[in-house]
Amino acid sequence: MDFADLTAAERQALQHCEHAILGRESPLRLDCGVELAGHRVAYKTWGTLNAARSNAVLICHALTLDQFVIGTHPVTGKPGWWDTLVGPGKVLDPARYFIVCANVLGGCMGSTGPQDRDPATGQAWNLRFPVVTIGDMVRAQAALLDHLGIPDLFCVIGGSMGGMQVLEWCASFPKRVFAAVPVACAARHSAQNIAFHEVGRQAVMADPDWREGDYRQHNTVPARGLAVARMTAHITYLSELALQRKFGRALQNRDAPGFGFDADFQVESYLRHQGATFVDRFDPNSYLYITRAMDYFDLAGAHGGTLANAFRGTHTRFCVMSFTSDWLFPTRESREIVHALNAVAANVSFVEIDSDKGHDAFLLDEPEMFRTLGGFLKGAAAARGLPEAG
Amino acid sequence: MDFADLTAAERQALQHCEHAILGRESPLRLDCGVELAGHRVAYKTWGTLNAARSNAVLICHALTLDQFVIGTHPVTGKPGWWDTLVGPGKVLDPARYFIVCANVLGGCMGSTGPQDRDPATGQAWNLRFPVVTIGDMVRAQAALLDHLGIPDLFCVIGGSMGGMQVLEWCASFPKRVFAAVPVACAARHSAQNIAFHEVGRQAVMADPDWREGDYRQHNTVPARGLAVARMTAHITYLSELALQRKFGRALQNRDAPGFGFDADFQVESYLRHQGATFVDRFDPNSYLYITRAMDYFDLAGAHGGTLANAFRGTHTRFCVMSFTSDWLFPTRESREIVHALNAVAANVSFVEIDSDKGHDAFLLDEPEMFRTLGGFLKGAAAARGLPEAG
Repeated sequence: MDFADLTAAERQALQHCEHAILGRESPLRLDCGVELAGHRVAYKTWGTLNAARSNAVLICHALTLDQFVIGTHPVTGKPGWWDTLVGPGKVLDPARYFIVCANVLGGCMGSTGPQDRDPATGQAWNLRFPVVTIGDMVRAQAALLDHLGIPDLFCVIGGSMGGMQVLEWCASFPKRVFAAVPVACAARHSAQNIAFHEVGRQAVMADPDWREGDYRQHNTVPARGLAVARMTAHITYLSELALQRKFGRALQNRDAPGFGFDADFQVESYLRHQGATFVDRFDPNSYLYITRAMDYFDLAGAHGGTLANAFRGTHTRFCVMSFTSDWLFPTRESREIVHALNAVAANVSFVEIDSDKGHDAFLLDEPEMFRTLGGFLKGAAAARGLPEAG
Repeated sequence: MDFADLTAAERQALQHCEHAILGRESPLRLDCGVELAGHRVAYKTWGTLNAARSNAVLICHALTLDQFVIGTHPVTGKPGWWDTLVGPGKVLDPARYFIVCANVLGGCMGSTGPQDRDPATGQAWNLRFPVVTIGDMVRAQAALLDHLGIPDLFCVIGGSMGGMQVLEWCASFPKRVFAAVPVACAARHSAQNIAFHEVGRQAVMADPDWREGDYRQHNTVPARGLAVARMTAHITYLSELALQRKFGRALQNRDAPGFGFDADFQVESYLRHQGATFVDRFDPNSYLYITRAMDYFDLAGAHGGTLANAFRGTHTRFCVMSFTSDWLFPTRESREIVHALNAVAANVSFVEIDSDKGHDAFLLDEPEMFRTLGGFLKGAAAARGLPEAG
């Protein structure tokens, strides 16, 4: 395949992972009605699929993350985003499980997204790329599992938008999911969260360098707009207490306020850095598409307005987790999932983890999360008849 | 005075209010060290100062509000922002009180701000305008009271940034304040609030039409940047529950999602409208300056790190109010003020008002706020020996 059209980051990503071209024979029909044929799914795997093909774990990534769950990221050079959870001797041990993580449809780390060419026209999709949904992402993952010869998953796990995918998996492919772990998520995106996403999109689209989405063809980058979008979003990933503890009103490299608009405060300097580095690793159009997919997520809405209907008849074992200081996906949202699962007598355990680190807690060193997940997986693996690692 | 240089909005505002040119003989020395001489303060008054000059009430406005507390706003055509509280038969009745409200220093409704000319150079200040503080705003108000012949205030009241000014009044001019009502505010701006302000400023400054602050001289308006700043801020003024109740996931003028980036959801349409209308009434540079003033506010920091020191020896009667769903200035922040006042044995009452409307509750129809304030003012007026209205 010719990657010449892709961004430098995507080319680099694809050199450090596997990819599959899917949907050539039976195209992926998107929720918006468009059919995608021959779309690319970039993915990583760790461990070995056992003979019974019963030990596969699918990790679903969040909005701006990707398939580089562990190890050094080929683009950013940073450690993998779930290094704490995945690896030898860790809760998700490749010695025991065959672990898969794929870049979502619409993403910018190797899977097909707005930066690709429309095969019908030979032109870059950009904003003409069809709007994708969480359901579309999950169907693309299901096609990848078919391609990999994985009939069903021992476990599907993810946080934030990854958790939305977990819920969608359980609703769309209940027989292919033995155990499910939706973390720090919701069954529908709230008005406030849609509002924050809209601000981010408006920031990108307000940047004249965005060029109605055709920035690559104009050799521009809407870097300022994307940075502002990231800064706003980043605040929502933390908690007020975490910001207060980490920065408070401490000044950056100065003893007294500068009486100007430089980054006087450490928290300003930190946010500016978050904005600036994000631009180096994430595609602006992809940011529009993936935030939109989250906005559209409404599992109850897709099941006659009753969330329990999404899970009726399920045999999946659920472990739902939330964090006390997460105000983006507050515990209340997780409780709604649990109530819906209880209403259909599903096998569900729920833990609200005490943490002051906000939404990002699911990516951090949270021993209670590891313990909870370890215990849940141990029980599920025993029920599934998986031998212990090593 | 020649208003030809001013913005159309400012000229219109000045035609509908009073103004004073202050500091000609003794310049206003700002916290940053700059001295302002001959600065303009635009203000409105209602009622009559009694013979004892003991019935003056100063209302301090919030970030994007102004001196048009009641009546039709000359620029926006909308009702005054505290129409619920001020007027005949209302809690602040001009028949009883002489009510004053001045546009803050750095503002854009008639008081001197970045849009004015630097008298030293004859050039527009723009970003060369000195950074002002809450303390500077209050000193400008004190000079206005001198000008109006008001020795001391029966009451100073305000919400949000207005509440910060109330606290600053009590700390800087304790003998000039008989009663004080800081509403929905804090004694210092939190890291999270600085972060949100910084995002807003970055959005303005990222707009190429901002032109390093010289947009008027270039006949441009950084409208897109200012709109994004307003959209972000507006989310923080509401509560998640208020957004959910008001909009939820309701679609705007359509039955099904549009699978695009138009304002599919009502909450998006609402936010876009908030952003667009703000641009018509507020000056982008002024937005930078006033948000900065709030960021710099730290009353404990200015008093040796101990908030109680700011109030030591006070004889002012305080009524502190917060709202349960206000996450911008949560009740915790008001409690810190109350604790500091208790530590110096001040006369203080505190009410947390149950409301799901978020920070903006202080501007809305909140009967418990009116009752609390009415009771407090009644007692204070009796202690002050003010006759009842009518």
